[in-house]
Amino acid sequence: MEKLSIIKIGGNIIEDETSLHTFLKLFSKLEGNKILVHGGGKRATQMASKLGIISKMIDGRRITDAETLEVITMVYGGLINKNIVAKLQALHINAIGLSGADANSIQSTKRPVIEIDYGFAGDVNEVASSAIDKLIKAGFTPVFCGITHDGNGQLLNTNADTIASQVGIGMSEIYETSIYYCFELNGVLSDINNKKSVIKHINSKTYQVLLEDGIIANGMLPKLENCFEALKNGVSEVKMGNISMLTKENELFTTITL
Amino acid sequence: MEKLSIIKIGGNIIEDETSLHTFLKLFSKLEGNKILVHGGGKRATQMASKLGIISKMIDGRRITDAETLEVITMVYGGLINKNIVAKLQALHINAIGLSGADANSIQSTKRPVIEIDYGFAGDVNEVASSAIDKLIKAGFTPVFCGITHDGNGQLLNTNADTIASQVGIGMSEIYETSIYYCFELNGVLSDINNKKSVIKHINSKTYQVLLEDGIIANGMLPKLENCFEALKNGVSEVKMGNISMLTKENELFTTITL
Repeated sequence: MEKLSIIKIGGNIIEDETSLHTFLKLFSKLEGNKILVHGGGKRATQMASKLGIISKMIDGRRITDAETLEVITMVYGGLINKNIVAKLQALHINAIGLSGADANSIQSTKRPVIEIDYGFAGDVNEVASSAIDKLIKAGFTPVFCGITHDGNGQLLNTNADTIASQVGIGMSEIYETSIYYCFELNGVLSDINNKKSVIKHINSKTYQVLLEDGIIANGMLPKLENCFEALKNGVSEVKMGNISMLTKENELFTTITL
Repeated sequence: MEKLSIIKIGGNIIEDETSLHTFLKLFSKLEGNKILVHGGGKRATQMASKLGIISKMIDGRRITDAETLEVITMVYGGLINKNIVAKLQALHINAIGLSGADANSIQSTKRPVIEIDYGFAGDVNEVASSAIDKLIKAGFTPVFCGITHDGNGQLLNTNADTIASQVGIGMSEIYETSIYYCFELNGVLSDINNKKSVIKHINSKTYQVLLEDGIIANGMLPKLENCFEALKNGVSEVKMGNISMLTKENELFTTITL
């Protein structure tokens, strides 16, 4: 089975021109088949604010009303995605920017209202791995933003971490797939106040112990749940750390396996 | 040689939800290989205005400063493009939205400042017809917005009529290519006050006569120059009229040949 790397970057990299350039250079040098997934929530919040739209968040998840969906479609699908694609082209990576509607690559369902109405938020239900693979085989490098569609003409807002894990699950039918979640920390920390206290390896068993000891909590919890969801469904390996984990020199990051 | 149809739609169709839906249904039923090109200037002007940016136009061409380029990238590349793609998916067309940066499909050069500084406006210098063809052969229907790139990481604003003619020229290496410019009129009119006075056929010779008689002037002139530019460089046929020219029933439109 050929290998495929899926790299997810978030706001801390996208917001800063220098960080983005450093990351894109590392990404461009990464060997083998690869996919980039980007967030952009901070920029969307800024743009919404400029347009007089107040961003509502519950547990870190955005409430996506109709006008917020417009902003997200503009910022994720247009501004951030097209700029990243243009910058990758300059680095000789033949990037192609995609929402889940493009090539019908990611279909989702509008999240049902149970206690909270998340609005136009989509939960992924199908990744068209063969369509994505056609693009890879044709020599293109897919760049996904956090937008999906319901198949009936409606765009939906989907968390970029989830896009990475769901695309990873889909692509693992065809490739031996690894996911790299790049974020501001060096990895999962055993002591939140010590940046170097990286837990180098987590598996299902040690994860339970870390949970019971209260070491994994708050924002890290949904991230790790996402990782195990991916691993249980075909993804070979997940790594979490800052962008330097893409280089061979740096060994300070967290590797997560089943 | 296989046939390819390139259909360009402008603001009058995009702005109106019903018109857009009617058009997309016609487009979805069109047989054979096809490409959609869309404008969206009015929506961009509205969004710019909401953000407190004043749109500057000279002879119908937008002066694209840095913040206007951001708006254009958001509105053309994000809002309009992704919504059209999602709507086409609902009509079972496997659309893929593209700027010229995506798949390195359209490279351009920033327009040199001669008398007027158009800012981040791009004049097309290369269409990657083989990359676009890979997408068509893979079963995707390209949907282009009016954004190109310079190959060095810079996005540029390019008129959608020009995108249609330049993509047409590029693709005519591979396909027998027709371009359909859909706009608010039934075709090129001999009497601007009579909507039914459509000139059914224009060629290089009759065009000269129409020019001398002052029948073609103002906004129609650059449109027709664009058509002849395409025809002289490999495009087989250009049609101009309202969207009903895509149906077999309507014969009221203008066909332009060399």
